[in-house]
Amino acid sequence: MRTVIECVPNVSEGADSARVGEIAAAVRGVPGVRVLNVSSDASHNRSVLTFVGDGDAVRGAVMALFEAALPRIDLTRHRGEHPRMGAVDVVPLIPIRGATAADCVALSRVLGEEIASRFSVPVFLYEDSASSESRRNLADVRKGEFEGLAAKMARPEWKPDFGPAGPHPTAGAVAVGARAPLIAYNINLGTSDLAIADRIARSIRHIGGGFRYVKAMGVELADRGLVQVSINMTNYRKTPLHRVFECVKSEAERYGVPIVASEIVGLTPAEALYMAAEHYLRIENFTTDLVLESKLLDEEG
Amino acid sequence: MRTVIECVPNVSEGADSARVGEIAAAVRGVPGVRVLNVSSDASHNRSVLTFVGDGDAVRGAVMALFEAALPRIDLTRHRGEHPRMGAVDVVPLIPIRGATAADCVALSRVLGEEIASRFSVPVFLYEDSASSESRRNLADVRKGEFEGLAAKMARPEWKPDFGPAGPHPTAGAVAVGARAPLIAYNINLGTSDLAIADRIARSIRHIGGGFRYVKAMGVELADRGLVQVSINMTNYRKTPLHRVFECVKSEAERYGVPIVASEIVGLTPAEALYMAAEHYLRIENFTTDLVLESKLLDEEG
Repeated sequence: MRTVIECVPNVSEGADSARVGEIAAAVRGVPGVRVLNVSSDASHNRSVLTFVGDGDAVRGAVMALFEAALPRIDLTRHRGEHPRMGAVDVVPLIPIRGATAADCVALSRVLGEEIASRFSVPVFLYEDSASSESRRNLADVRKGEFEGLAAKMARPEWKPDFGPAGPHPTAGAVAVGARAPLIAYNINLGTSDLAIADRIARSIRHIGGGFRYVKAMGVELADRGLVQVSINMTNYRKTPLHRVFECVKSEAERYGVPIVASEIVGLTPAEALYMAAEHYLRIENFTTDLVLESKLLDEEG
Repeated sequence: MRTVIECVPNVSEGADSARVGEIAAAVRGVPGVRVLNVSSDASHNRSVLTFVGDGDAVRGAVMALFEAALPRIDLTRHRGEHPRMGAVDVVPLIPIRGATAADCVALSRVLGEEIASRFSVPVFLYEDSASSESRRNLADVRKGEFEGLAAKMARPEWKPDFGPAGPHPTAGAVAVGARAPLIAYNINLGTSDLAIADRIARSIRHIGGGFRYVKAMGVELADRGLVQVSINMTNYRKTPLHRVFECVKSEAERYGVPIVASEIVGLTPAEALYMAAEHYLRIENFTTDLVLESKLLDEEG
């Protein structure tokens, strides 16, 4: 598998597992696609599919996803804790191997056009694909949710990038965009003092003056008597794990607190771990060509 | 590709690239086998093939290798700097994914039997497959080389594990065995004083009281004005890269010398780098299931 693009669509159904299963089966049936994970949350009433393939396979899978999701999800009757504006709410495209961010931006435009013309669902491009800065952040695009969408789209600044000028009656609208792989990374501190985790989280996150691609907050792990700096690494290539780890370590030392452990939640690209090994071992000639398993993936058809 | 066994046979031909190409093509033609590398050394008059596959594929490939190599290599006329006892000199089997050392030991016995019966070449099991401690070390098995093999095999303690009691007239004998993946790993020191690299190499290598799975020597990098601790890591699971790196760093500090860089020569299993990332980042929940690319390989048929 030379080219690997990861697609992590979120659909607004998380309670009816039969329906989720039918939607996932439609994606699984597309040649060249591998579904790595399907995870549903009933209180959010939302499911996240993780699948990979090359550009063509991902295109086919996103169309199959819409074809299966639209007749099964009616947002006029949808309740759930998580904000949403569409039956297929968001379609993130992530370059993993043999594809660049630019390739995924181009793919998002192809998808946008096809979603609009085949399903009459308006499409907003977001993140790296955004047509303006005000559309980069998914939370801004989704603000007002399905219920507020008709009024929002009536304003000229919220004309969609593709498709009809108003929302689809039952499926709302969808955000499609390229983004860097996200790593959920937690660092546990040897103290029960939540204020310390909070203060460190503020010091490393972008909004507080910290690293550009870090979101962070303090969390209490009451059962372990520890606190945690809970981190979203939104671009590990530009803000790598080891740099954040060393910064947290140094900030914690200032309070006499050790790092007990760290934790990766969900999946990480291998490259994020290779970068840490390269840094600490000072490997001067590192490329993924040195890694046997990477060559195995290269050899795939 | 669920099960991945690496096989790194050495054949006694490194000058005639047409012959080497024919031998490699025979291996490449076996279904389920992927040849990752072919590297020839003319002064050694020896080539190293690196290929991977599951047990059955590797078995087929080793047979194809013998079939192609035996008519093309005549050890009675072979000259080269590297010690050798066979046309196919050594067949190491290395578990990479979904296979254990015990699986590779079992495979080495299957291969030994089949090589002996199909090609009348005597087989010595070595390393993890060795039938006695005195046969574990390849250098001991090969001592005396092709020219001394008839006399050596006449002694009862050098009866082969499989096959005829004396050498094959043109192909000698072969060593077959399971071993852990070997990583060639060099650490460059910020000094031109070779004595320091030598002293550190002695302190970390097994023979000098150092780590069990480390072989090391000092090397001069004259063009860079540096010296290098050149290391063979013979079992990175039991003696990991980061432990050796930190030990070299600490020994070098005692002389006021920094580590400038390290270098991986050839291929490394991804796991060796994951172990370094896990150590330095203190990742408490690490398994390869967290790595996206590892899941891609798991999904292969």
